[in-house]
This record gives sequence, structure tokens and C-alpha cells, in this order.
Amino acid sequence: MAFMVIKNVNVLTMNKEKDIIENGVVVLDDHIIHDIGNEELLDQYPCDHIIDGKNGMLIPGMINTHTHTSMVVFRSLGDDVPNRLKRYLFPLEKMLVDKGLVYLGAKYGILEMLLGGVTTFTDMYFYEDEVAKAAKELGIRGVLGETIMNFPSPDSEEPYGGLAYSKWFIEKWKDDDLIIPAVAPHALYTNDKEHLQMAAALSDKYHVPMMMHVAEMEYEYKQCIEEHHMTPVKYLDSIGVLSDRFLVAHGILVTEEDIDILEKRKVGIAHNVGANSKGAKGVAPITEMFHRGMKVGLGTDGPMSGNTLDIVTQMSLVGKVHKLFNHDRRLFPASEILEMATIGGARALNLDKDIGSIEVGKKADLVLVETSSVNMQPIYDYYSVLVYSANPSNVDTVIVDGKVLVKNKQLVQREVATSTTIDEVTNTPLAIMEQLKRVREKIEKAANKL
Amino acid sequence: MAFMVIKNVNVLTMNKEKDIIENGVVVLDDHIIHDIGNEELLDQYPCDHIIDGKNGMLIPGMINTHTHTSMVVFRSLGDDVPNRLKRYLFPLEKMLVDKGLVYLGAKYGILEMLLGGVTTFTDMYFYEDEVAKAAKELGIRGVLGETIMNFPSPDSEEPYGGLAYSKWFIEKWKDDDLIIPAVAPHALYTNDKEHLQMAAALSDKYHVPMMMHVAEMEYEYKQCIEEHHMTPVKYLDSIGVLSDRFLVAHGILVTEEDIDILEKRKVGIAHNVGANSKGAKGVAPITEMFHRGMKVGLGTDGPMSGNTLDIVTQMSLVGKVHKLFNHDRRLFPASEILEMATIGGARALNLDKDIGSIEVGKKADLVLVETSSVNMQPIYDYYSVLVYSANPSNVDTVIVDGKVLVKNKQLVQREVATSTTIDEVTNTPLAIMEQLKRVREKIEKAANKL
Ligand SMILES: [Zn+2]
Ligand SMILES: [Zn+2]
Repeated sequence: MAFMVIKNVNVLTMNKEKDIIENGVVVLDDHIIHDIGNEELLDQYPCDHIIDGKNGMLIPGMINTHTHTSMVVFRSLGDDVPNRLKRYLFPLEKMLVDKGLVYLGAKYGILEMLLGGVTTFTDMYFYEDEVAKAAKELGIRGVLGETIMNFPSPDSEEPYGGLAYSKWFIEKWKDDDLIIPAVAPHALYTNDKEHLQMAAALSDKYHVPMMMHVAEMEYEYKQCIEEHHMTPVKYLDSIGVLSDRFLVAHGILVTEEDIDILEKRKVGIAHNVGANSKGAKGVAPITEMFHRGMKVGLGTDGPMSGNTLDIVTQMSLVGKVHKLFNHDRRLFPASEILEMATIGGARALNLDKDIGSIEVGKKADLVLVETSSVNMQPIYDYYSVLVYSANPSNVDTVIVDGKVLVKNKQLVQREVATSTTIDEVTNTPLAIMEQLKRVREKIEKAANKL
Repeated sequence: MAFMVIKNVNVLTMNKEKDIIENGVVVLDDHIIHDIGNEELLDQYPCDHIIDGKNGMLIPGMINTHTHTSMVVFRSLGDDVPNRLKRYLFPLEKMLVDKGLVYLGAKYGILEMLLGGVTTFTDMYFYEDEVAKAAKELGIRGVLGETIMNFPSPDSEEPYGGLAYSKWFIEKWKDDDLIIPAVAPHALYTNDKEHLQMAAALSDKYHVPMMMHVAEMEYEYKQCIEEHHMTPVKYLDSIGVLSDRFLVAHGILVTEEDIDILEKRKVGIAHNVGANSKGAKGVAPITEMFHRGMKVGLGTDGPMSGNTLDIVTQMSLVGKVHKLFNHDRRLFPASEILEMATIGGARALNLDKDIGSIEVGKKADLVLVETSSVNMQPIYDYYSVLVYSANPSNVDTVIVDGKVLVKNKQLVQREVATSTTIDEVTNTPLAIMEQLKRVREKIEKAANKL
């Protein structure tokens, strides 16, 4: 038996009753949560590997339900400009024909996510196999889908090349313990009916998630109404691609009828409040969706849209934006926001049987948030402190699948149990940052031409 | 000559031209910025006290233009509840009859502000002399005003006792180098015409700022219309209390005519975007005020409203909220947001001749933001990184009036040049935090009765 014990923590279980165990103890057996209780457990499970939580908060690992991680190589370019997607993003992304850049961006972004307490991330971009490789090296859990689009993309000279890539990618990763492959058509305005149905068929065949930008852009909405006389959600339903495996990224421009459809089809929602605010896109009616019991999680979107990749920052925004927009300060109490950041995200990805809460039998994806920094006191309400006061720098320890990946706010260097051993030289945070700086000039030149 | 040199920094001067000096050098002569330039200055000013900025960003000290610092002792109580002010705040504040609690809260809150890069804070609360004492001990610059209200307050059994306190307080602190005393009537709904005019007379007589919650609450607005048939701003103007020394906290519920009045009277505005969002109060028309060239700064409001006391967090919110609300992603480019956080706040307090930008002859209130954390790279645009990616934990070094108060993200223990020497035992961050924890139980009991 190789138990690991976390003691001296206030456990925010995020189970159905939202139980909080003060001065609690959590026992891990390899990658599984084996027992949860108070200090008596210390006698029951004598072991060498003890983590002293120093009266911090232990929460379920946070889940980033929508991002394009490798885009971090372009972060801080093209902010505050109109028509950013077509003027900056698509042209810059042509640089990603160099798949080494995708890999580097993935490593960098995953590093940022881990340090910020994200234990599962959902990604759709190009050369997703590079993202999977980076995820495996660093030990994070990933739901990853190759982007499918109707024009040549960095990884394919052919339109819709992402579809063949997806099939290959799913076959390669479908039995992995950390990587869940997915199907990821980019959006309605970059995919036709035939290819959306092919993507859905792939999702059906392999029982993998299907994710897509839906009801995000005004031009997407207008174009869909003009061409199909239906809203995006209604159209997607009419062509039979919505299911409980479908994950809508955004869902801003939805009608009441659309919400009914999404509820009926048990579709998951990735709510990207920061990116949607900064992009002036609007406020998704998450209040209603969440209170209907729909599967809503939080996402950062890509780092050219939302800039940071952690979920703590998103939590701080959710309440503010929805209270303000609905003119009701009671909306979204802090505990519901942590729910979306953890078990809500797990639900959206249909992973709530395995992750998203601290319960016996679940996988050990855990985050220790320290409470010794000045912004974390006083604590009269754990949820308030987490949601309204914390920032990603308060994340102290991060455990994914029972492995300690971050300790004392630093990435733990470790050997990984795959065919390759982690490269000590190129996988330190400093090395990853240095590699990113080296491509800076090339990227800046490309950006200056835009 | 006792020069101090800061080298290897990217200087965001926030001067009129928003000059940025990459790999710059800033030379301080005691408490004044003496020279600004590039590495050649290193030969010109050989000195022992050199700070290596390690390629970080040097920005003007940030200015918190509105808060109630000591309220931090109640932080995380009463979030997400309606009618919070009257149900929680006022009753809890009765505990502040213990002025030791005000002092403790001030020390704690100032610690948080300093660590987050705030070099000047604007405070209105009770026993403001305790706040001034704490500010002096820790070395921060403060614009401080005793709250004036028409009912007994923690520091006065008499209604309007704050007025006499203010006079005494101004006399005591008016020649201090760090503390600027002010007059601070709480709000329209807690002050009558006569006492507002007396407060204005005091501000006139001593040439000190006058600050007040204005156009913040719906009931304030309604009541003013009912009683005076005028908006709050128009009413304040009609009774002759507005001037270029007046600082409006909030200014949410203002008409076009109100904005005209505020512009004409050269009134300063403290924009508390985080607190106003969380409190579902609305969005102040800062876009228009700022672009008219009015004096707009950022504030946190009290830590039961906005929770955190740093301005980095506010910067990250300003753009998002205003872009979203005005449906325009170009609004408030990041450089304008840093402008509000620094020189804008200085303008609102009429201190822009002394602080708010990095210019020769100004006081040395400076903040070094490190760029070695993973969230701070890559840097294609300094402002974007500061506003969209940074969090308060990225503040590395803080200098107020030429003195290094924070170094390597830690408070520097030092002797202060006042009559008292800083108490090493009770002024360490740990000691301040421990003291706060000790009063926790008492406060919780009081809160449970509400
Ligand atoms: Zn996206
Ligand atoms: Zn206030």
C-alpha cells in the first residue's frame, strides 16, 4: 500500500451537500481518493508521504472547459483591436505550421494552468498531438480535440483536414489514462452540414466528446439565420449533431427555445466570462442554465482572448459580471461559482463520475490553496475568500491523478511513467520560458506586418 | 548625495507622451526622482544603492482613490446578501468603537496595499487618526478623512461628531509629508445641507480634499429627487459644495447634465469598478468622463464591498466591464487603464504635480513589477501584460517617497523617521495577521447575531 495523506486542511468537498471538513484529512491510495475525514485518520493510515496543508483550503482540481493553449505564444498581441479574429488570429496562426511552436506553447500554457490550480483542461487547436505530448510530459489531464475547419489550416493543406487528423488522434489516445481525445469542429461559419455530421458520427463511433464554438459571434448568428432561418443552436439540433457528449463553447446568443433544446439534449456549456467580457461579446445566460441544473463549467478561451489560463481569475469575474448584468447582488453566491469551476466543469465534460469533487473513489485531482498570504485573511467564509479575494498565486500544491505536480508554488520535476523520461533540461519552467522568449522576435515580425 | 539607482527596468513613465524606456535607469535623490534615462546614467551616478530590476516593468506607484481600509477586519462576511450596508455593515461597524480594531485593520489593509503596489491610498472611515498612525508606521502615502454622518458613529456619540474630529485631525496632520488630511461626509442620505456646507467650509479653509459617496445608491438617488427635485450631483452643486477639491466616490447614477456639472467644477472621480460590479450597482459612465479629460482614478472601495485592496485587480476589471457594457472591444485600451490607476488617480486627488508618473522632479513613488512569473510572458505589449495578465502577486518592489518598503515581494522591516520606532514585534506581516486572527472570534459572534 502506498498511501499519501494530506492533513491540516479545510476540505471544500464540492460533493452534493457541499460538505466542508475543517481541519480535515484526505487519504490517497495511488491515484484514487481513498478516505476523507478528520485527524483520527492519521492513526488509521500511518504513512511516510504526508503533506501538511498548513490550514489551507483543499479544493477539487479546477477544470478549464475551453481553451486554445498554444495560442499563449501570441499573448499580448492584438488586444483592444476590432475584428481581431480575422485580422490577427487567423494570420498569426499560420505560423503554427511549425508544430514545434504548438508544442512549446502547450508546454508553457500547461505550466501556467498547473501553477494556477487547473488539473484538467479542454483544448481545441492545431497539431493536437503536440498538445497531448506536452500534457503527458507535465502530467495534466486533458480533453483534446483537433480543430476542423473548411479552409487550409496550419496542420493541413486540405480543407477539413482536421477530420482525418481527428480519427488518427482518437485512435492513438483513446485508451490513455490522462488524455481524452475529442472531435472539435471550429464553428458554424467554418464548417458545413456534411462535415458537422461526419464529426458527430466520429464522436458517436468512439464515444468521445464533441466541442465547438456556438452562439459566440454576431456574424455567426446572423449568417445562420440568413442561411438556415434558424438560430445556431436550433440549426445544430436540426441536423442531429447535439447530444450529451456535445460541449458548447460560449452559448452567448441563445434564445429561450435554444436553452430548452440545450437542456433537452443534455449539452454541456463552457462559460468563458473573461474572454467574452474583454471581447465585448455579451453575457451568456448562465444564470438560467445553471439554475436549471444544466452542465455548466468555466473556461478561459485562448490566451489572445482571455490572456490568462487559470480558473481562479475566471471565478472572480463570474459573480461580478452576472450580478452587474442582472442587477442582483445575490446572484451566484461564491459557493456556486466554485461549483462551476470544479464539478460543473466535470459535468460539462461527462467526467463527474471520476473528477470534480473530493469524494471517496474519485480520482485524486486536488488543489491546496494557501491561506497565509495577506489577501487570504480573514476567513469567515471559505467560498468568499476563494472567489472574491484569491488570485492564482495563492495555489500552493497541485495533485493530478495522485501525483504531486506543483509544490510550494513551484513545478515539481519528476520522471513520467511513459516511454519517455521527462527532459530535465527543457522542461523546467525557466527553460520553457526561455524557449518562448527565443521565438518572440519571429512572432513580432509576423505581427508587425498585419 | 545619497543617490539610489534602479537599473535594468522597462520604464512605463505615464508622462504625457506615455514614453516607455526599455532597459532604462531611474535615479532617485532621496525622495525625489532625479534622473531618467538609459544605461549611460550608470556611469554618471555611481552609487552603492542599486536595485536590479531584472528586466521587469517600473511603473508609477498605483493610487487607490477610495476605500475604507479597516473594514478588512470584516472581509468575507455578508457577501452575496441584499441590503448589505444596513443589515451588515452599519451594525458590524459598531464594533469599531474599539479604536484598536481600526488601527489593526488599517495596518493589515495597508500591508495588503503595499504588497500589491499601492503607494497612495484614499481612506474615509472612523478614528482616522488610527489610520494615519498605521500609514506613518508602514510608510505609505495617505489621503485620509474622518467620516461625517448624521447618527452616532463608533467614534462619536453625537450625530455629526465627525466634523469636530475632522477639524482636530486636519490641524494635527496638515503639515505632514505623507498624510494629507481631508473632509469626508459619508453621503447625501447621511448628511443634511447645513453640515455639508460646514464640511465644504472646512475643506475651503484648510485647502484640503473633500470626498463623499455620490450617485452610488438607487435609494440615495430617489430620495434626492423626492426631497430636492434634483439629481444628487445637481443638488450638491446647488448648495455650493462642489469644487476642484471635491472627490466623488462612484458617480454611477449621473445624467449628461450631471457630467457637465462635474466637468465644469473640475471634480475628481473615484471609479470603483469591482465593488460596483459585485454590488450590482451599475456601471459609472467613466468612458465619457475619461475621454472628456476629467480627473478619473481607480478605487477598491471597502473590503466588504470589493474584498481586495490592490489596484492591479481593478485594472483587470475596468477594460472588461466597460468593453462589455458598451459592446465595444476597442474601448479603454490597456494604456488608458494604467493611466487611470496612476496619474489619473493623482489628478483626481490634485496630486499630479507630485506623484502619478515617473518624471524628473516628482516624488519617488515607484513600483517594480516582475516579468519572470509565467503569467507575465510573452511581452509584446507592456500595458496588455500589466492589465490583462498581471495579478497583485507580480509586484516585486515598492518605493514610497524614496524609501523601499517592499522588496522581493516582502515587507521590508525598517525604522521610521518619526517619534516612534517601528515595533519589530507587532509590525511584521505575520504578527499583523496573527493579531487579526485573534479578533476573529469576537467578530464572528457579532456577525452571527445579524
Ligand atoms: Zn475558443
Ligand atoms: Zn465607499
